[in-house]
Amino acid sequence: MKLLNETLKKITSLDEEAMSITRERIDNLIKPIGSMGKLEDIAVKLSGITGELHPKVDKKAIIVLAGDHGVCEEGIAKSDQIVTAMQTINFTKGLTGVCAVGKLVGADIISVNVGVKHEIDNKDVINKVIRRGTNNIKKGPAMSREEAIRSIEIGIEVAIEQIKKGKNILATGEMGIGNTTPTTAILSAIAGYTPEEITGIGANLPVERLQNKIDVIKTAIKVNKPNPSDAIDVLAKVGGFEIGAMAGVMIAGAAYKVPVVIDGYISTISAILACTLEPKVKEYLLPSHKSHEKGAKYATQYLGLNPMLDMDMRLGEGSGAALAFNIIESATYMNKEMITFAEAGIQP
Amino acid sequence: MKLLNETLKKITSLDEEAMSITRERIDNLIKPIGSMGKLEDIAVKLSGITGELHPKVDKKAIIVLAGDHGVCEEGIAKSDQIVTAMQTINFTKGLTGVCAVGKLVGADIISVNVGVKHEIDNKDVINKVIRRGTNNIKKGPAMSREEAIRSIEIGIEVAIEQIKKGKNILATGEMGIGNTTPTTAILSAIAGYTPEEITGIGANLPVERLQNKIDVIKTAIKVNKPNPSDAIDVLAKVGGFEIGAMAGVMIAGAAYKVPVVIDGYISTISAILACTLEPKVKEYLLPSHKSHEKGAKYATQYLGLNPMLDMDMRLGEGSGAALAFNIIESATYMNKEMITFAEAGIQP
Repeated sequence: MKLLNETLKKITSLDEEAMSITRERIDNLIKPIGSMGKLEDIAVKLSGITGELHPKVDKKAIIVLAGDHGVCEEGIAKSDQIVTAMQTINFTKGLTGVCAVGKLVGADIISVNVGVKHEIDNKDVINKVIRRGTNNIKKGPAMSREEAIRSIEIGIEVAIEQIKKGKNILATGEMGIGNTTPTTAILSAIAGYTPEEITGIGANLPVERLQNKIDVIKTAIKVNKPNPSDAIDVLAKVGGFEIGAMAGVMIAGAAYKVPVVIDGYISTISAILACTLEPKVKEYLLPSHKSHEKGAKYATQYLGLNPMLDMDMRLGEGSGAALAFNIIESATYMNKEMITFAEAGIQP
Repeated sequence: MKLLNETLKKITSLDEEAMSITRERIDNLIKPIGSMGKLEDIAVKLSGITGELHPKVDKKAIIVLAGDHGVCEEGIAKSDQIVTAMQTINFTKGLTGVCAVGKLVGADIISVNVGVKHEIDNKDVINKVIRRGTNNIKKGPAMSREEAIRSIEIGIEVAIEQIKKGKNILATGEMGIGNTTPTTAILSAIAGYTPEEITGIGANLPVERLQNKIDVIKTAIKVNKPNPSDAIDVLAKVGGFEIGAMAGVMIAGAAYKVPVVIDGYISTISAILACTLEPKVKEYLLPSHKSHEKGAKYATQYLGLNPMLDMDMRLGEGSGAALAFNIIESATYMNKEMITFAEAGIQP
């Protein structure tokens, strides 16, 4: 709890002066005012985060948190849990979706085992195992309150390590067979949507098994009675280790003034948890893509985000966030490479 | 007319066999089927265009066509026409919006003068001037039928030159103060939308002058009576030199099997002209972003495209297309770097 509390205390609002200097420059670049849309807003936000007119976002890391879920015994996922372990290793070998995009954009992929069921014996995977999978949320809490705090603190630890290594932009990703079930339970518990409204097929769950998934989520909420205003309670009762850890990455980014790119549905739910703990975290987050998973648009709306990519993607792993890295970096190029009307000798 | 006809004749449909081989590989990569959304469709399309399982799209050029418009004398644009000339030069110096993004993604910016009003004496601007600006479309045709054909052929010539230099992906961009007026006239003439529905403020035209712009477009269509099924007639009567030239770039891409990325509103109108001349051109086009300019969504719908970026941008120059280059390249990385379930030893 000490690390979490100390990190939360470090978080301040964005640097208003830096933002206003950057906005003024952007409004004077040789283009119609406002015509570069979200790129302009991103450039201003990056200045607010870093306090610099020309921040760099060229040292990129995607932190992929992996964990398993006891609720899988209810048949809410199509794949076997062994896939969580295999993919957690594959992230270190450059073989998965996020790795492919990450290679193009020059991002490091950091694979972290927060609580995978099957044994992972691989020196390239960061071992932060809390426990080998959560408990079945249909029957009781996923984890203890202490474990929930620990999951967030793991995210903080890993993020701080990357920042110390010189990374100036982070993204969150995850791997965990079955994790759209706890995610949807969290969204329902905090934002009040019914499971019927927001439950999707995740990683291609056959449609005839969707009603069972909805029923499991409803029962999980009924049995556990998570307190919507207490993010740690919600995480402990119906969450997952990797979901808490991603929230920790976001909290660390806000505390150490490093922008964090949110991936899709599950990352957005972690963002909701982080922002419930400390609303100012939101100012340090950059959304990436509109996930195709059913609950994503509700989560995005609840948090008040407006993603830049519309790719119909729903892979997770941080793959959508990886695609956004270069767009975000383009905003810094816009601000640095373009000249102003005055410099060009053009009447605006 | 010879170059245009010969180029149109070269255009064939996509390579179905290559697409089916790529689709099969993608369906077996270690991810839920379909979960990488548009990236999967892009990878399949690139195989259809090139006939290769692993095509490269790493040699990028943004061809920026510049021209002026006689209709500016009607007060339909905020900026002076000197800006067209100054920006046409600035493209060669790395100073504009498309240059900033292009630098990040490693794209060459090719600046082409198709018909700028003010003299441009700069060896880095490709000089293909047809005439120093079109005629005022409110009073009569923008150009002769021969000039319209010539504008398209200029686009073909410049694109072929870039392809000969080894470029394996092209994008279109434009510069022309006032060019949302002829663009909107073309869209209204071909697709049947009323000017009231689709006319926007372009480069920040003051709102109180919008009705005049709408009236000018209505009069231009009434006076010229463009034939909606004859793209060259529409281009000649209510178009512009750079609008025709962008259509030429797209036609050359289709003929020489090189993908062409469409930028925003004005590029999409050029795509409508190109596809009216030869519907198969569409198979070689990749949309980039949803332009914030009012008519863009109508043009995109008419052509049946689904852009990948939602950036609220409306700059033109090819800046949105430049942002899409790395996303398109990511699709090739996905297909090449990821392994299949069989290779990974995972049960899908």
